[in-house]
Formats: sequence, C-alpha cells, structure tokens
Amino acid sequence: MNARLQLPSSEAVAGSAAELLTVLRAAPPLVQCITNSVVTGFTANVLLALGAAPAMVDITGEAGLFAGISSGLLVNLGTPTPEQRAASLEAVGGANAAGTPWVLDPVAVGALPVRTGLARDLLALSPTVIRGNASEILALAGRTAGGRGVDALDGTEAAADAARELAERTGGAVAVSGPVDLIVDAGTAIRTANGDALLTRVTGGGCALGAVMAAFLGAARQTGDSPVVAAAAATLVYTIAAEDAAQGAAGPGSFAVRLLDALSAIEPAGVAARARVEVAAAVTA
Amino acid sequence: MNARLQLPSSEAVAGSAAELLTVLRAAPPLVQCITNSVVTGFTANVLLALGAAPAMVDITGEAGLFAGISSGLLVNLGTPTPEQRAASLEAVGGANAAGTPWVLDPVAVGALPVRTGLARDLLALSPTVIRGNASEILALAGRTAGGRGVDALDGTEAAADAARELAERTGGAVAVSGPVDLIVDAGTAIRTANGDALLTRVTGGGCALGAVMAAFLGAARQTGDSPVVAAAAATLVYTIAAEDAAQGAAGPGSFAVRLLDALSAIEPAGVAARARVEVAAAVTA
Amino acid sequence: MNARLQLPSSEAVAGSAAELLTVLRAAPPLVQCITNSVVTGFTANVLLALGAAPAMVDITGEAGLFAGISSGLLVNLGTPTPEQRAASLEAVGGANAAGTPWVLDPVAVGALPVRTGLARDLLALSPTVIRGNASEILALAGRTAGGRGVDALDGTEAAADAARELAERTGGAVAVSGPVDLIVDAGTAIRTANGDALLTRVTGGGCALGAVMAAFLGAARQTGDSPVVAAAAATLVYTIAAEDAAQGAAGPGSFAVRLLDALSAIEPAGVAARARVEVAAAVTA
Repeated sequence: MNARLQLPSSEAVAGSAAELLTVLRAAPPLVQCITNSVVTGFTANVLLALGAAPAMVDITGEAGLFAGISSGLLVNLGTPTPEQRAASLEAVGGANAAGTPWVLDPVAVGALPVRTGLARDLLALSPTVIRGNASEILALAGRTAGGRGVDALDGTEAAADAARELAERTGGAVAVSGPVDLIVDAGTAIRTANGDALLTRVTGGGCALGAVMAAFLGAARQTGDSPVVAAAAATLVYTIAAEDAAQGAAGPGSFAVRLLDALSAIEPAGVAARARVEVAAAVTA
Repeated sequence: MNARLQLPSSEAVAGSAAELLTVLRAAPPLVQCITNSVVTGFTANVLLALGAAPAMVDITGEAGLFAGISSGLLVNLGTPTPEQRAASLEAVGGANAAGTPWVLDPVAVGALPVRTGLARDLLALSPTVIRGNASEILALAGRTAGGRGVDALDGTEAAADAARELAERTGGAVAVSGPVDLIVDAGTAIRTANGDALLTRVTGGGCALGAVMAAFLGAARQTGDSPVVAAAAATLVYTIAAEDAAQGAAGPGSFAVRLLDALSAIEPAGVAARARVEVAAAVTA
Repeated sequence: MNARLQLPSSEAVAGSAAELLTVLRAAPPLVQCITNSVVTGFTANVLLALGAAPAMVDITGEAGLFAGISSGLLVNLGTPTPEQRAASLEAVGGANAAGTPWVLDPVAVGALPVRTGLARDLLALSPTVIRGNASEILALAGRTAGGRGVDALDGTEAAADAARELAERTGGAVAVSGPVDLIVDAGTAIRTANGDALLTRVTGGGCALGAVMAAFLGAARQTGDSPVVAAAAATLVYTIAAEDAAQGAAGPGSFAVRLLDALSAIEPAGVAARARVEVAAAVTA
C-alpha cells in the first residue's frame, strides 16, 4: 500500500477545517459530554461559543439512549465517579450501536488504577479519536506507568510511536496535544503548530479540545472527512482562536474569557489562511 | 370570576420588580440550589452578584433539613445523579413542610426517561414556580415527547396552553423562557420582552434564572407578592441586566463576565423604568 | 516556655511569603483537591494562575494513593457526596502515612449533620491547617451550632479562642478568614490585613484560598517554614493579588477574571513590600 498517494495535502486539511466550521454552524451538532467536574462549565461554554449544542448527559439510564441520537460523544476520565464510569460504558455502547463517533480523553491514566482500568476497557471499544498529552498516550499504550513518564516539556514526538500503535489497534485517530500537536491514524501523521502557551494555564484547556473534536466528528458525518482530518481540523480552529485570545490578554483569567469570544468570532476563511499544518505518511517504527 | 379585575397592571409588575430587588439586597435570601454540575459555579456567582446568599446543599441527610430554613429552593434536573435525585425529593419534602417556596427547572425532560420520571414526581408535589423553555414545558405537560418537539425558535407562545394547564395543576406559576418570556398562573399571563440573545450562548443562562426566581420568591415572602409576579420580577431584573451586559461585550465570554457585573450594579429605579412588560388575563383554551 | 522568643517577626513572615512564592513557581507543587462542585473550576484556575499544579483526584481507589505522592492536599466539605466522603477519609489516611500536609475546610459545619460528623472525624486525624470563617471555626470547636452563630460581620477575633483551641488539639495551624485574617498555632497569632471585600462576592473566594494554602504547605516542605507561617504566606499572596484585581474591576465578574490575572502576575518583591501583617504570642484564654 502506498500511503503517500492517499495522504491529504496540507492545504486540504486547512480547507477541511474551514469547511467543517461552516457546516458545524449551519447545523449545530449535538455533542454529548461525559466529562470531569472541574471543566464541565468551561467545556459547555466552548461548544456554545463555537456554535455547537452541548448536552452533559452522564447518568445511567440516559447516557446510552442519548448517545444514539447525539452527533458526537466525549468521554473524559478526569473525575470518574462510579456513576460516571457506568454511564461511560453505557454511552459508548449506545454510540457504537448507532454509529455515533466518540472521543476518549484518558486524563491522568497510568499511575491511577481506577481510571486506567476503565481507559483500557474503553480502548477495547474502539474510540473514533483518542486525545491526550504525550504522557497519557504513552501510558495508555502501556509504554510507561504514566505521570512519572515523559513530561509535557518533551513535546509530542516522544509519543509518536505509541500514538500510531493505538490508532492501529482502534482503527481510529489519536491526537497528542503539545506545543506542536500531532494527530495520526494508521497511515497519516498531521502536525499543527498553532496555539498559545496560555492554553496550559487554564483548566480545561485540553479537555475542552476533546469536546470540540467530538463536535467536528459530528460535522464530518456530513462532509465525509476522516477522523484524523476532523480531529486536526478541530485542533486548528481551537488553537487559532487561542492565538486571537492571547493577543491583549493580561493573564490566564482574561485569556479564558477571550478564548470564548474568539471561538464565537472566528471565521472559516481566517482558519484556512492561518493554519500551520504539515501532513506526512506515518512511518512504521 | 372576573380575572380581569384581579390583574396587576404592567406598572405594578415593574414596580414589584424594583421593590423585590430592594428587599432582596436589604435582607439577602438564603437560596438552596440543587442544580446540575455544569452551572453550579455560574449560578452561585449570579446569586452573589445580585445580592442573595447561595447554598448548594444537595446531599441526602442535609437537603431536607436545609430546605426548612432556606428562603427559597431551586431543583434543576440538568445532571440528576442518584444522590441528587434522592436529595431533591428530600428537599422538596422539607420545603413543603416548612412553607419554603421552590422552583422546578425540568431541564431536557421528555426524551430522557430518568429525569422525566423524577420531574413528574416533583410536579405532583406542587412547585411554586416551574421554569423551562417551550419544549420542556410542553413535554412536562405531556403534550410532546420533548426534544424533537417545539424548537426554541418557535417562541414561547406555542407553550402557552401547556403552561397554563401546569399552573392550574400546581396552583403555582409557570415561566416559559424565550425571546419574549411568558409567565403565567391560573388567571394571569405576564409577558416580558427584555434580554439579549447572548443569554442563549452562555451555559447556565437559563438555569441561573431559575435560581434568581427562587431568590425573588424568598424576597416575596416579605412583600406578599404572588409567585407569578415574583417570577416575572426575577425575569425582568435578570434580562435587563443582560441588556447592560450585552453592551460592549465582544462575545459570549465577556458577556458572561459583564452579566455578573451588571447584576451587581443594577438599580431598582432602572428596572422599573426599563421593564418591557404586558399583563393579560389568562385565556381558557 | 517563652513563646515570645520563638515568634517570627512581621518582616520574617512577609519574607517567607515572598520566598515561598518563588519556590512554588520554581518547582510547582502537585496539589490534590477534594472540593465542592461549585468551585472546582475556579480553584483549579487559581492554582494554575499562581504556578501550582492542581489535580482533582476525589474518588475512592485513587484518592489515598494519590495523597501519598502529592505535595499537599485540600479537603473541602462544601458538597460532600457519599463518594467524596469516603474518598476524603482515604486521602487523609494516605496523606498522614506519607507525611503529606493537608488542609481541612469545614464549609458550613454546625447545623448540617452529615458534613459536621465528617468534619469531626477529620479533625481527629490532625489536619495541618484548618481554614474557615469565624462561624465555621466556632462550630467546629463545638462552641456554637454554626450558621445561626457568629456572623461574618463580627470579624475573626470572635473565633480567636476557638481557633487556638483547635490548633492545640491538632498540633497544626488554624486560619480564620475575614476582613482581618487571623492565623494561629498553639503559640503564635498572625494577623493579616490585605484583601478586598469583592472576595466575598465571588463563589470560591474562600475555598480557593484553602487550595492555595495546600500549595504553600507543599512549597514549605522545601523551606522548612511552619504551617502557621505557610498559611499566613498563602493568605498574604492571595489577598494582595485580590487588591490588584479590585483595582479597575467593574464588579464581581470582572474581579474574578482579574484575580486570576493578578495571581499569575504577582511578584515576590511586591508581596514582601505590601504585606500588612502583625505577629503576636498566642494568649491563653
């Protein structure tokens, strides 16, 4: 198989980001979020600002049913209470039965046993996209114990092999967040270089990106874009908005406020013009 | 019965809004909130900004006892965990035993079975005020399955009959939020037309209004205003503050920040002068 | 014992505040927070803005293990679900076994039985620092039923004896928040007078200070500062940042945003120069 021939161009990825943003606003995807208690409000506000419709349906008896009618689902393991753990499995069952794309954000897996066990169970259910930092991706792939492993400062490349391996196992895409974001599937490696360090000073800066990916996966059901392209498109829109927000911000408080304003104001044409993206064939280790 | 003779004038409702705001700030009502995990922080900040005293007492063993000493209670069904469901019933029992007024916000009832069952149980316990959008009010009245029913864009009038029917069943008031807010009891229909579309772009924009209604019901225990007038007064104060907040806002992020500032700064005289309110007799369907 | 000879000078406390802030930013302490659902996001953002690393690990099966590797732990009783209550006891067990310092914030103890019982159990486990308002400290010491007792307006001195008594029982420090903050241990009474009344108009204004204390206790493991000095240092840094935030704030909404910006920008030299602090020997009642 000559993966090169199937690769999208950088321009095509940037164009998909602009198109998916247009589609999302024209027909707001219903995004179900099962996420941690720290970032629920910020995550919902990010989705609303962007133009999507958030719904935090995270209890058993409702989560699975709702996953069948939602456009995309986020499962974030930041504060996984017993009720949320059961609801996550129920939701993913409903999503997989209905063909609803879903994102797994394995927050802090590795050293913490409860979420790590749940993350492995969820991994076996083939998430459409996995999103995490390098440390989390390495831990989920079983290459480190997490936490004490690769620091965020090491950048995303340290997790490139682990990301591709996970993508091969799930048949989906894996996004590694960092100064350069790396989004891969079995054959493609997309690197994006927009954003601002202030995103790491706001709680939920990464978690909300997982929700934006679920929204873009929902929009991609209309355009036919692949999960790796949808995840890269979400990253581009979110991190370009972060650049706008950082301009004139006096610190992390005003940055977070301005990020919501910027997500609401960002235009597809600006995304296409400002995207810093490279596409390469995934290299077998 | 000639309901027309008992109707308050528009000027009287605007005047009650100003007076209740004055009373609320002079003797801050203790507002117990059992609300969803997405909006807890924003809701508490709205109440604090306005001048009320929020208390999120939402566990069994405490919720009922506290409802007996609080000035008003909000029960919002946005993310009803098993513990919250039990605490809601306990709290309402305590509220009804003590004569504490309470607000039911039946978020997303209709298609989702767990909250829909709970909402019906709570409806039978006679909430002082029910607050929702048109779709939720229609679903709670059993006229649609919710969600797939009337869209928010259809406005509040589509739910006018359902709202009056619910008010007749509970003996209280029902508030339908939308571009024009409709607040009814068995004999009265109050329409208010203040506000800004940005309220729909902030998570908790509607949920926090339910808490403000609970605060105004608490203040109304001193003035003797009826639930329908107290709910309309809360709507006027909140939506007029939203108009102030929208001026100069750069998007939903700065709007939410400015809404808290505006709720803190809003003066009773300004509320009375700027209220856009009409009062009519409820028409039997 | 001549406590006077062991007392730090006011200048020394101000100097410790500056030094601990420097140490905290050079080696960000990992701060585990088990806190209420209203303030989780704001608390994490306060820690991130300051330069610390928050981690909301609050489920059983993880909380105790994580307390063994964290730099400091906060246990806040604002919304104590059954799962959080069990996790709190597990976390404190892990913290005490590992020598991790921990802060108890007994929100609203006294009239509410569930949290009051838990607070007494936790009190027996010797928190490094207890932080609350005067009413909560009096209730925890068994001197009032709480709530109906001393109002915040009465100031912190009304709880001075109760605070010292609790400090003697735990061997740690007790911080009473108010217009003048009082931080005591068995032999020392530190009073600080920085801050702004807007802190009381933002939900989590006090709760987040408990988390900052846990962060400073973590940093104090490197400097050897005592708990009472670390708690006073945290109070100084936080309340001086609040003064910066209040300047130019238009109300509680913009104040909260500016507080995060100010915590990120505040410099150790400014803390040392602006600290309003007095140190006295604790007086036996």
